[in-house]
Amino acid sequence: MSLRVAVYGLGPIGQLIAREVLKKKDLNLVAAFDVDQKKIGKDLAELLMLNDKTGVHVSSPSELGMMLKSNGVKVVLHSTLTYLDHVYPQIVKCIKAGANVISTSETLSNPYYRYPELAELIHEMAKKYCVTVIGTGVNPGFIFDTLPALLTAVCTEVHSIHVTRSLDAAKRRESFQRKYGLGLGLDKFKAKMEIGELTAHVGYGESISLLADTLHVKLDKIVEGQEPLIAGSSTKTQYVTISIGTVSGIHGYGIGFLDGKEFIKIDLFAEVDREEFEEVVVDGNPPLKWRSTGTAGDIATAAMAINLIPKLSKVGPGLLRMCDIPLPSTFLNLGVNQV
Amino acid sequence: MSLRVAVYGLGPIGQLIAREVLKKKDLNLVAAFDVDQKKIGKDLAELLMLNDKTGVHVSSPSELGMMLKSNGVKVVLHSTLTYLDHVYPQIVKCIKAGANVISTSETLSNPYYRYPELAELIHEMAKKYCVTVIGTGVNPGFIFDTLPALLTAVCTEVHSIHVTRSLDAAKRRESFQRKYGLGLGLDKFKAKMEIGELTAHVGYGESISLLADTLHVKLDKIVEGQEPLIAGSSTKTQYVTISIGTVSGIHGYGIGFLDGKEFIKIDLFAEVDREEFEEVVVDGNPPLKWRSTGTAGDIATAAMAINLIPKLSKVGPGLLRMCDIPLPSTFLNLGVNQV
Repeated sequence: MSLRVAVYGLGPIGQLIAREVLKKKDLNLVAAFDVDQKKIGKDLAELLMLNDKTGVHVSSPSELGMMLKSNGVKVVLHSTLTYLDHVYPQIVKCIKAGANVISTSETLSNPYYRYPELAELIHEMAKKYCVTVIGTGVNPGFIFDTLPALLTAVCTEVHSIHVTRSLDAAKRRESFQRKYGLGLGLDKFKAKMEIGELTAHVGYGESISLLADTLHVKLDKIVEGQEPLIAGSSTKTQYVTISIGTVSGIHGYGIGFLDGKEFIKIDLFAEVDREEFEEVVVDGNPPLKWRSTGTAGDIATAAMAINLIPKLSKVGPGLLRMCDIPLPSTFLNLGVNQV
Repeated sequence: MSLRVAVYGLGPIGQLIAREVLKKKDLNLVAAFDVDQKKIGKDLAELLMLNDKTGVHVSSPSELGMMLKSNGVKVVLHSTLTYLDHVYPQIVKCIKAGANVISTSETLSNPYYRYPELAELIHEMAKKYCVTVIGTGVNPGFIFDTLPALLTAVCTEVHSIHVTRSLDAAKRRESFQRKYGLGLGLDKFKAKMEIGELTAHVGYGESISLLADTLHVKLDKIVEGQEPLIAGSSTKTQYVTISIGTVSGIHGYGIGFLDGKEFIKIDLFAEVDREEFEEVVVDGNPPLKWRSTGTAGDIATAAMAINLIPKLSKVGPGLLRMCDIPLPSTFLNLGVNQV
């Protein structure tokens, strides 16, 4: 059993996805797409720095519909942009070519939060073409929503949920360090944040609304924000020098209020030299506390996308979310059927 | 919106389930069943030591079919015995009365492991009567199977999974301490274990096979066992005195082999004065380690059963397992619909 897959978007995450799909014996990577003229036409091996040619050349998205159909692609692993209004036309093209779409676009993890009308359009179109569309990733998609939701399954009552993700920004790729504004003076940081040049993390509201929906809670409101953390000593990463008083990282957060009180709180600390961990604390019956030694973000996001492939075969068509599908997990072998 | 529910089995777990169902404003507890003549006829309030009468009297299981139908029961929360061959006739009666069944019977969590023929019979009958049957609990059902499965969703590769659950047996109820043989001399312990008078934990094989199926892995074999832990100093619990050299707890384990190597290993340490925690370690890409401060077992099992109620409304009929249903979680309000 081998499933025909395409990768759409060959940035850092898309490249990781492609690399991992090539390793999976049950997945057959037959097409790859990117807008970058420097990438188009190249064998994927060149882009991924693999020794052996893959036979898959990067195509322009203008060829997407034709390529997906002629190659019988069943699943597009999509990793281009963050905001659904930008990726919407891309998703539509995949749907019309009859392919299921698993995307790492952050706002697609719960598109009803920020783009309810586009979400409805995608849902209707996916049903019409009998395909599934879903957004996932490590975050949104796992740490701040899917995982805490599952952890509460052992609770008869939940009064509040607090999730913290703390990571060492120095260990992340260059584009991550740039989009978090490491090393910038405070004024420059604020100006760039203002015009959207620094995105940092997007998805606090998506995670909170997704978690609330999973738990059947109607929140009063959701608040989200991000503020710079300032270096108390000078340091440097592989890519950036950080002087005292400049930005050493970001603290981002989201809060979901229920009956006027904080019901869901998520905190992200991404800073140079910070301890790596995640922690989920549930004030409930019973009370719970789970803590990790950290989760490598990029590979985790690639994994979340790839690992959904066998889960989608068990659900109906439409726009789905992580709370709508059977238990996510890794898979070792598509061909080993469950009972 | 209020859903009509019955509780079948009023041992320690069944009583907890009944107590929690009575607290849920969306669940309407309309019937309760137990074989114990001392319980039959009593108002549940008396059994649960509640101040206010519930109006629900304990009935004999001989009245089950009639009572479920006349009360329009949609879900039976079933908590009687461990082994499926014992509970099979009970499940059948519920199915024939048109009720969905959520059971804490350990071997029903993955009945294909120990009772494949009974599993098939239940599956066919559940489909015929258009109801869902599922087994769950904290363990099997969560710590050793559902949770580690979800944690691997961020991994592109998994080489091995090791789950440890460590609990302080002194903090558990009397029947738990008795079934683990606390305070017994070693010979007596072995003799009682031999004749099945001490059950300790049942479900290592169920958890491992369920986790393997979720990950699409065909294991070579599964081994399971339990051995006594011996007290090095004398101590006592609320119910049992433990002298030096007698049984202070149990170490139980299960191992699932893949290609001749340990792929899944689960360890349970239930001993007096032991630290309470769970830990999941995944050797994979990325590697993972998650650790808790412990999960109170009885309330967690009651929660797992109750919390599946809204999840079952989204799946087709038949015998299901934790890997077949949408993301388990607590729920605050049945009436708040998801998108």
